[in-house]
Amino acid sequence: MELRKIEVCYSPALYPYYENPDAIVVVTDVLRASSAIVTAFMNGVERIIPVGTLKEAKSLKDQGFMVAAERDGMVRDFADFGNSPYNFTAARVAGRQIVYSTTNGTNAINLASSGSQVLIGAYLNLTALAQHVRKEQKDLLVLCAGWKSKFNLEDTLFAGALAQLVLEDGNFHTICDATLGAIDLYNVARSDMMGYISKVAQNGRLKKNKLDDVIGYCHESDLTDLIPVLKDDHLVVL
Amino acid sequence: MELRKIEVCYSPALYPYYENPDAIVVVTDVLRASSAIVTAFMNGVERIIPVGTLKEAKSLKDQGFMVAAERDGMVRDFADFGNSPYNFTAARVAGRQIVYSTTNGTNAINLASSGSQVLIGAYLNLTALAQHVRKEQKDLLVLCAGWKSKFNLEDTLFAGALAQLVLEDGNFHTICDATLGAIDLYNVARSDMMGYISKVAQNGRLKKNKLDDVIGYCHESDLTDLIPVLKDDHLVVL
Repeated sequence: MELRKIEVCYSPALYPYYENPDAIVVVTDVLRASSAIVTAFMNGVERIIPVGTLKEAKSLKDQGFMVAAERDGMVRDFADFGNSPYNFTAARVAGRQIVYSTTNGTNAINLASSGSQVLIGAYLNLTALAQHVRKEQKDLLVLCAGWKSKFNLEDTLFAGALAQLVLEDGNFHTICDATLGAIDLYNVARSDMMGYISKVAQNGRLKKNKLDDVIGYCHESDLTDLIPVLKDDHLVVL
Repeated sequence: MELRKIEVCYSPALYPYYENPDAIVVVTDVLRASSAIVTAFMNGVERIIPVGTLKEAKSLKDQGFMVAAERDGMVRDFADFGNSPYNFTAARVAGRQIVYSTTNGTNAINLASSGSQVLIGAYLNLTALAQHVRKEQKDLLVLCAGWKSKFNLEDTLFAGALAQLVLEDGNFHTICDATLGAIDLYNVARSDMMGYISKVAQNGRLKKNKLDDVIGYCHESDLTDLIPVLKDDHLVVL
């Protein structure tokens, strides 16, 4: 039997070189978009419409949607709330459709739609993701949202965690240097994840805007089995 | 005094996001272009003209230049020899001008020319590079040639080695996740570099074409103090 391959793409700007129509693409933006999206489904949201620009978000707000939108840590004046996972409470989101405007996440989700299936990944649903990927007859491609097209560590560590878990199944292999690097970095970081994360650039950005309260939560594993999946242009539960 | 910054760019395709006119840009393609170029200067080459396409290489051959050119491990029929560092012997290159056609390296060198100075880096001249960078009043940007726009481990490890060495000087700092990741990977690999390198994708490619005899040599540190620098469109000794 041919082994299925695992690759990790460190930035949306590198996606053309990793694109694979036979792959399940797991999009991750650990701090904070993908963690917020998974949280919203844990709290009963019906569907999430990811949008890239504030203009689209505002237009959907005018059509009556509830909108989460911020830029550089500031909630936009037209939005209902910001992008922290803590904002997506059951009281706010259960049974509703939410528009979510993200800096890095939406572009990644759009790119990933050339794959066979697009899933949203975070530590919160790590093992469920690995189990789903193992049972499908597909390759795995992890797309890190990165930071404004640059490499970031927190998404890479998550990619390493997921790749390592999936590789434990003998049906997968990897000859992808980015995957091997991500696994090694995850194993450097895992014994003191919060210590490690304190040095990453995004930690500094979130701290500066007093948004770093979610960092611990975003690194908790397996709080849910729910997996958000892209269906047309919106996210629902798989 | 303001600290000078260090960044690492993992692929020429990410260069627009890291570009810095105030930086010394060190281009590296450890297996094998940058190691071959440094070796050629160790053996007395006068100048190297890096070209991207075989067409350019052939045209310069017709004009009388000595040409090193191969693709996928096969020496091209019009070329004098291939791209292995071992081909650039003193008998062949001393006092001469050589045209060097590389898959990944030339594009990286061209991009880097938007920086303040473009240097060619390899383990062979690692400490000399670090010393030069420390004494200039400039930032440092390491540009990894990668593999066909993808991330590769061998260039990343070198970037980590160089960044770590330069950071020992208190005049530099980094908040670049790619730099922090490269340093961590280098420290994972360094105690058994050849064991680590045996798993990277380029090792497999070189082995397949029986070109892996140079891997050990390309990871030897500080065989020279010579630093190739880009001057107009060719490389000379700094």
